[in-house]
Amino acid sequence: MSDSVGIVATRRAVLTEDGPLVLASGAELAHVEVAYETYGELAPARDNVIVVCHALTGDAHAAGWHEGAARPGWWDNLIGPGKALDTDRFHVVATNLLGGCSGTTGPQSIDPATGRAYGPDFPALDMADLVAVQRRLLDLLGIDRIHAVVGGSLGGMQALEWTLQEPGRIDRAVLVAASARLTPENIAFSSVARAAVLEDPDYREGRYAEHGVAPRHGLKIARMMAHITYVSADSLEAKFGHRRDTSGTEKRLAADFEVEHYLQHQGEAFLRRFDALSYLHLTRPMDYFDPFGTYPDVVPGTRFRLISFDSDWRFPTAHSLRIRDELAARGVAVEHTELASPWGHDSFLLEPPGYHDLVRDFLQQPGDAR
Amino acid sequence: MSDSVGIVATRRAVLTEDGPLVLASGAELAHVEVAYETYGELAPARDNVIVVCHALTGDAHAAGWHEGAARPGWWDNLIGPGKALDTDRFHVVATNLLGGCSGTTGPQSIDPATGRAYGPDFPALDMADLVAVQRRLLDLLGIDRIHAVVGGSLGGMQALEWTLQEPGRIDRAVLVAASARLTPENIAFSSVARAAVLEDPDYREGRYAEHGVAPRHGLKIARMMAHITYVSADSLEAKFGHRRDTSGTEKRLAADFEVEHYLQHQGEAFLRRFDALSYLHLTRPMDYFDPFGTYPDVVPGTRFRLISFDSDWRFPTAHSLRIRDELAARGVAVEHTELASPWGHDSFLLEPPGYHDLVRDFLQQPGDAR
Repeated sequence: MSDSVGIVATRRAVLTEDGPLVLASGAELAHVEVAYETYGELAPARDNVIVVCHALTGDAHAAGWHEGAARPGWWDNLIGPGKALDTDRFHVVATNLLGGCSGTTGPQSIDPATGRAYGPDFPALDMADLVAVQRRLLDLLGIDRIHAVVGGSLGGMQALEWTLQEPGRIDRAVLVAASARLTPENIAFSSVARAAVLEDPDYREGRYAEHGVAPRHGLKIARMMAHITYVSADSLEAKFGHRRDTSGTEKRLAADFEVEHYLQHQGEAFLRRFDALSYLHLTRPMDYFDPFGTYPDVVPGTRFRLISFDSDWRFPTAHSLRIRDELAARGVAVEHTELASPWGHDSFLLEPPGYHDLVRDFLQQPGDAR
Repeated sequence: MSDSVGIVATRRAVLTEDGPLVLASGAELAHVEVAYETYGELAPARDNVIVVCHALTGDAHAAGWHEGAARPGWWDNLIGPGKALDTDRFHVVATNLLGGCSGTTGPQSIDPATGRAYGPDFPALDMADLVAVQRRLLDLLGIDRIHAVVGGSLGGMQALEWTLQEPGRIDRAVLVAASARLTPENIAFSSVARAAVLEDPDYREGRYAEHGVAPRHGLKIARMMAHITYVSADSLEAKFGHRRDTSGTEKRLAADFEVEHYLQHQGEAFLRRFDALSYLHLTRPMDYFDPFGTYPDVVPGTRFRLISFDSDWRFPTAHSLRIRDELAARGVAVEHTELASPWGHDSFLLEPPGYHDLVRDFLQQPGDAR
């Protein structure tokens, strides 16, 4: 484990000691806690901080190992001593998203005003709110200047939001497989996923937890469908072809082909780790995200590295090119590379050739003499 | 309406007067009725017959108008006097699929052995069974030789099955946006759609009708998801962009963007016209379909015209090329054209430039001097 940050633990911080968190909608959250992890030493000058933003269903455990765990953090291949996010040089801060279900305040947290879980009364979130919580944490940790914000998919969208919300605070941003405005097809897939949850009879208008049930059927279907969009047709072909688990026996309506069992497994596993209301609240900010419309005149003092993957059909390269063009039109330094990778959108979590080197070089190149 | 076949009515024929229908699985159906329509006159030589095969959720009403109906048959733009399937020359026979819910025997039909609906006891179907019912009808109508079998999507798959089951009966076949073997991505989408139905608590192990309920939630979600795959990302962009119905008002979890309302409408409308068990039984034969494996040595005495559409990502052109190559390797006359069309898989129901002319020319060109 010489390239691992080793054993780590998730910490929690209260962000509302000095007042409530006011959301973009005007709604307020009186008590907000955030789950986070850090890796690598903070430099005395406090100038070596990298913020990692997770995607839809990630958490604060981005790298290293929890005591006794069977698997490392979700971005352990990218973060560690000598890795692209080199913890021998950088102090990496990873948080869990507001609205999530892995330690940060979310729909199943207790509303201090009522003494019971928010449930359906949890306010709708904006991308700005997801970032606002991370900003408060960094403030609390006494970190002003940020060397880089790094994220893939929804994580990349947060990184972009960061640079527009605080145009003078962030030196570099790495956006992988991200988007600055979803297509109607993107929204359509998320909408069907949400409808599967919202219209599940066990959703009980969002009060399912109080009734001791959960919209398991809808959430499982939502995840199975979404999973198809995270991978490429070619990778499914390579992995499963036309093979059945039960070759030779009778044909049936229920799962039979290997790809069907795989999706069933993905859906079931998701139910064990994710909450339905969090799923609704974290998919929706992506649909509304339109940062170049929201901040028409902001010029981020940030250099950007954009990466997309040729087999990603959830957020294809056109999304990254749009971000590049919008930033370039504002005179911002931005570079984009489309990498070859067979694994579709999920490539941002894997190691297609050239990917980690691009990130490493960008984070370590000299500059930022401002 | 000079180019319309005018007012038509669906007829029904009993196909089991001389014995049960034995399915590919060995299961038997003691009583089978088929719903069908015909357009144009049968020539005295009985040599001008075109069989039209419908796609997943179609029916026997392919052309003309039912008395008082607001809309014509589903392929009315293709079938009629002077149209590509010219009813001034051809006698067109359109049937409803076995297992469906629009007149032909299906899961909600009465099982003569029990006096109640088959429900979950309806046998799993094979592509061969769908075609077997059509063959029996043609036999009953006294039609031997078939000028052409024409179909799009699942309809094209039936057309291919026809030519391999009866290699000496069919002169020409038109396969539009068809496939001879689904990819794991294709199967994955269908599998999630079926899981949405099969795992809906109101499915009641297929006995929902007896309980006076239906897996409406699952079937609606299935249709909404499938609909996304029938259209192209570009056509959704052109139609809906990033527009909300409620611009300016508060953000919310439920449907808001125009594309979401559109999908909701598609899902709701489908519930009014389709049965959940029929949906399961008619999607599944596509997954198992592997005609070149099933009939390794059959050489159809048929000329083929294949058409695919460049924006179709449900059954992209690669599927048609595979059919072309397999047929060509058997020495069969086959031509393929990929047409430009913005509308994705649904293009086979529409009129992208060149499409109907290709079909017309192929059906009317001289030949078949055998």
